[in-house]
Amino acid sequence: MSAPRFSANINTFNACADRYVLSGYGQRLGTDELIQAATQVPGLTGVEVVGMWHVNDGNVEQIRRQITDAGFEVTCVTPDIWASSKWGWGSFSSNDPAIRKAAVQEVKKSMEWAKQLDCKVVDLWFGQDGFDYPFQADFLSAWDRLIEGTIECAEHLPEVNLVIEYKPKEPRTHCFIATVGKTSLFLDRVNKPNVGAMIDVGHALMAYENAAESAALLQYFGNKLFYMHFNDNWRLWDDDMTVGSIHTVEMLELLYWLDRMNYTGWYALDIFPYRENGIRAASESIAWIQGLHNLLDRIGRDRIAQVIASGDAMDASAMLRGALLG
Amino acid sequence: MSAPRFSANINTFNACADRYVLSGYGQRLGTDELIQAATQVPGLTGVEVVGMWHVNDGNVEQIRRQITDAGFEVTCVTPDIWASSKWGWGSFSSNDPAIRKAAVQEVKKSMEWAKQLDCKVVDLWFGQDGFDYPFQADFLSAWDRLIEGTIECAEHLPEVNLVIEYKPKEPRTHCFIATVGKTSLFLDRVNKPNVGAMIDVGHALMAYENAAESAALLQYFGNKLFYMHFNDNWRLWDDDMTVGSIHTVEMLELLYWLDRMNYTGWYALDIFPYRENGIRAASESIAWIQGLHNLLDRIGRDRIAQVIASGDAMDASAMLRGALLG
Amino acid sequence: MSAPRFSANINTFNACADRYVLSGYGQRLGTDELIQAATQVPGLTGVEVVGMWHVNDGNVEQIRRQITDAGFEVTCVTPDIWASSKWGWGSFSSNDPAIRKAAVQEVKKSMEWAKQLDCKVVDLWFGQDGFDYPFQADFLSAWDRLIEGTIECAEHLPEVNLVIEYKPKEPRTHCFIATVGKTSLFLDRVNKPNVGAMIDVGHALMAYENAAESAALLQYFGNKLFYMHFNDNWRLWDDDMTVGSIHTVEMLELLYWLDRMNYTGWYALDIFPYRENGIRAASESIAWIQGLHNLLDRIGRDRIAQVIASGDAMDASAMLRGALLG
Amino acid sequence: MSAPRFSANINTFNACADRYVLSGYGQRLGTDELIQAATQVPGLTGVEVVGMWHVNDGNVEQIRRQITDAGFEVTCVTPDIWASSKWGWGSFSSNDPAIRKAAVQEVKKSMEWAKQLDCKVVDLWFGQDGFDYPFQADFLSAWDRLIEGTIECAEHLPEVNLVIEYKPKEPRTHCFIATVGKTSLFLDRVNKPNVGAMIDVGHALMAYENAAESAALLQYFGNKLFYMHFNDNWRLWDDDMTVGSIHTVEMLELLYWLDRMNYTGWYALDIFPYRENGIRAASESIAWIQGLHNLLDRIGRDRIAQVIASGDAMDASAMLRGALLG
Repeated sequence: MSAPRFSANINTFNACADRYVLSGYGQRLGTDELIQAATQVPGLTGVEVVGMWHVNDGNVEQIRRQITDAGFEVTCVTPDIWASSKWGWGSFSSNDPAIRKAAVQEVKKSMEWAKQLDCKVVDLWFGQDGFDYPFQADFLSAWDRLIEGTIECAEHLPEVNLVIEYKPKEPRTHCFIATVGKTSLFLDRVNKPNVGAMIDVGHALMAYENAAESAALLQYFGNKLFYMHFNDNWRLWDDDMTVGSIHTVEMLELLYWLDRMNYTGWYALDIFPYRENGIRAASESIAWIQGLHNLLDRIGRDRIAQVIASGDAMDASAMLRGALLG
Repeated sequence: MSAPRFSANINTFNACADRYVLSGYGQRLGTDELIQAATQVPGLTGVEVVGMWHVNDGNVEQIRRQITDAGFEVTCVTPDIWASSKWGWGSFSSNDPAIRKAAVQEVKKSMEWAKQLDCKVVDLWFGQDGFDYPFQADFLSAWDRLIEGTIECAEHLPEVNLVIEYKPKEPRTHCFIATVGKTSLFLDRVNKPNVGAMIDVGHALMAYENAAESAALLQYFGNKLFYMHFNDNWRLWDDDMTVGSIHTVEMLELLYWLDRMNYTGWYALDIFPYRENGIRAASESIAWIQGLHNLLDRIGRDRIAQVIASGDAMDASAMLRGALLG
Repeated sequence: MSAPRFSANINTFNACADRYVLSGYGQRLGTDELIQAATQVPGLTGVEVVGMWHVNDGNVEQIRRQITDAGFEVTCVTPDIWASSKWGWGSFSSNDPAIRKAAVQEVKKSMEWAKQLDCKVVDLWFGQDGFDYPFQADFLSAWDRLIEGTIECAEHLPEVNLVIEYKPKEPRTHCFIATVGKTSLFLDRVNKPNVGAMIDVGHALMAYENAAESAALLQYFGNKLFYMHFNDNWRLWDDDMTVGSIHTVEMLELLYWLDRMNYTGWYALDIFPYRENGIRAASESIAWIQGLHNLLDRIGRDRIAQVIASGDAMDASAMLRGALLG
Repeated sequence: MSAPRFSANINTFNACADRYVLSGYGQRLGTDELIQAATQVPGLTGVEVVGMWHVNDGNVEQIRRQITDAGFEVTCVTPDIWASSKWGWGSFSSNDPAIRKAAVQEVKKSMEWAKQLDCKVVDLWFGQDGFDYPFQADFLSAWDRLIEGTIECAEHLPEVNLVIEYKPKEPRTHCFIATVGKTSLFLDRVNKPNVGAMIDVGHALMAYENAAESAALLQYFGNKLFYMHFNDNWRLWDDDMTVGSIHTVEMLELLYWLDRMNYTGWYALDIFPYRENGIRAASESIAWIQGLHNLLDRIGRDRIAQVIASGDAMDASAMLRGALLG
């Protein structure tokens, strides 16, 4: 069992906006400043970047040097197929073949940048691929197109992993790849060794999933959990809060199962510290994960396994109570 | 496209209880009276029965005659693996091998009764197979056992279909087979031609699924939608209300896609008319489904297909408005 | 019972943005163009404007003329105390006295503009007044400040009505004035004749309220329902969809009770047609409200009253089915 | 600040049933055995009883002696106006005047028993007063009747306190007295010194309330928080789990505010340990509350007050992390 390695999207340190405060609650920074900010987070050794926002054909080598010089690995490149109006009616699943093609192209470019950045992971978040209203979606062609596009990308660079990041909703009221189960169905149909899943903890909470269970299933049925996004919320929306804010016990259960299922990927933060300082928000999140992880060691993995095997909820309660409250 | 055929569990006509009013809000009836009540529901041509509640080794032939004489087909036999305290910690996935064996045996018996009743469908609802508290479940052994038990049953009588009825929660706070996606994963691992899925509309609503999409996916990826349970709710809980109470438009979309995907199974009611007369509740539900189905004809299936293909939500709105409000 | 009069915020016709697509899905228009767009919506006779966005000290007379010339009344002026980062930690309830003072000043200005625009209503939506994290809020000082600020504004121009627009969350994970009940508590403490409530249908749905019940209570206990915002959603989030998309029956119940409780205010739209044409979205919404309102007439208000008085849900079902499906 | 005093309904130790397992998951016990079971829970010094279930005109003196001899105070008597089919269409708000009268009578009797048992609190939970379907409820007469009945009871024995226990839903899909805000409106209209509120933590969670805020508001605006019911859930349903299962941080915030607002009532458990041993479930719940309460002392109330006053969520995070994880 190796120690967790922590990453964060460098945009964590930028001003966060919502649909009311479009210019953001904090200060807009350039990529240089974002990387600089990342260096101030204790324990952070990886960073994520977004295609076209932070990295492009012209600057990839320079970004590689900057990030390496700052002491980081690049852990994930996320293609932007959801943040401009042209993707608003879908990316891979758009009714417009030109948009579909452009989206696939965007992903391929991110895969190439990932390779150049010695990064193994490209994040496929199909946030705009879904529907808002009843009688608006042709589910069949949507799934066909999502599968086809993903296969085409997977074959483009087999040495780069694509991770499917599911989410029940937002920005669409319904996203097609919504839950861990649908992700599993999707991975089966894509059927490529370099296509796996990412769990964003907040997305799992929104879907009334126990993220520990979701992680366990993805690993158990094919070792398909390639990456993790950490954050917290109040369960009903993707509030993207710092880790440890709300769900103490569930987070502990997730961390336990990640180790038990031999998850060896990054522990990446995906938080939106709208009104908080990004450096503090990332630092707190890492400190919470680290602290909870240490707590598991103090309790003892064998003892936890025994309690789980017994299925005795009051034994679990007493174990957790002792660990958290002394 | 054939006309929907309607069924209802004969228990629809019995007193419904909840955790406060354990003796039920209405009058307790015997099986004879329940069958008699069913005959008073216009349009009803099928009935469901529950193993051991209504049918057993001793009465199966008599029940067959009674139901046939009353003019009904038996559309589903549901084994009771969730309604007594012995199943409280799980049926197929119980930690106790004797309970697992008993549960499998219960299902096999229901399959045999189904066969004797000329019924093709046995409903596997794993309501008690899940967990209530964190650190209480071993997800891996649970899934293994659910898969194994289902395979054993499927092989017992290949001519009888088993339908997996998923539900996010209740009676456990988390059920293992919770969503359409997890059902799909489960069916893949079981991999038997006589094991498919049932969608209970209320369970899909609770899971923030669009039931139309869930139905379409199950049919598209393997023709695995074998059966349907109809009801309605306020989206957050399995209120088991009559069809048409709340979700007019979504129900319409579901009915459209069932036809489009060539669903030929029964339209069965699974309602809990706690404070309503069961005969009226069933009659209303059928009349709503029939009325919505007719409305689809009046709109025209081709026109609907065009609106969906366009992805234009305001065209959909205008189409529905014209149909519903004139 | 008078016919509904329809209004819409002129921003309905502008590009809608979310936290991902900050530049919006559509085209950004100027105030002139927005007013022009409004004239293309059948049945629209009122418009809402936002303070500082559309109206200010320099242009109020010109805006008055433009809007009047276009054939509209101004039905509501909404002060912007939630759309720039300076309000991010609260407006009336901010810990910073300078921000509190500025927010009160902003509202007073909007009241003055309202008066100059012959508009009776100013909308107090305390979207930023709440909290995101546990242990972050002093509820007592927050409520004190909200009450004090509202009283100060109410006394500033007693001939202009302030309407409290409650919402459970967003942009904060928890807003202080969250539900119809808290609104009622707030109005009691403010205790000013020119301070009442607005119901935004989507906010009520998010709060698991029956909007009909919320409207009835506000009217019954003090005639405090001064204004209505119409839209629809999938119940769990403020999706700001067009009216009629999802909740056919509940919308009908709301419209019935508005008439029954002698609501005489405007029927204003508050929708976010992210990916739809704003003119069509507003037109559809009005046509749905009008169509549902007509349906109530066709059913007959007396018959509805009788069904409600009986408490018989199946009578209600049959009545609605007949009306909607013929 | 006094130490919390703990109570539990003696039914905690009885078999819990749900709508599937009507005979319950455990063993049915008599009142004697339930009281005996209560003595085995460390820290428990109070018990609740239910009218007619445990106490009646014939046995009240004997029950008083039994409970006193066992070392307990009676902290609450709950009239049963929700657990038999006759209350199914409402108690105080029923359309049937005979039922209304019977319900009021039931409450008065419980008040008398409470007085004889030296108990100050009678719990008014209007679980059956609400509606299930649209167009089923006359909200106005319902509120009138609830208010009238409560006033009549309040005047019956002014020395006994009535506590309104709000809940959004279940057993009705919508209860009239649903939230803390509606409770406040209700208390204002009833306007009796011996009528206050109870917060059931799980009901507050279901309503997306922060229970700490709800408690603070009830105390701040009239010292109306008379009683507390503790339990936990997964936020979307009244799962009635043991304290500490899920919401560690929110429970801590609630306990802090109860002390800060000088709440001096009982800390009563209202849990449904369906599949758990009741004695262990109660013991765990008390140990969690006690442990969290001690943690507040260790952190220091002044420090907490400072963090709250600052509104700094990351300071709050660090404070909690240090306290829970060391």
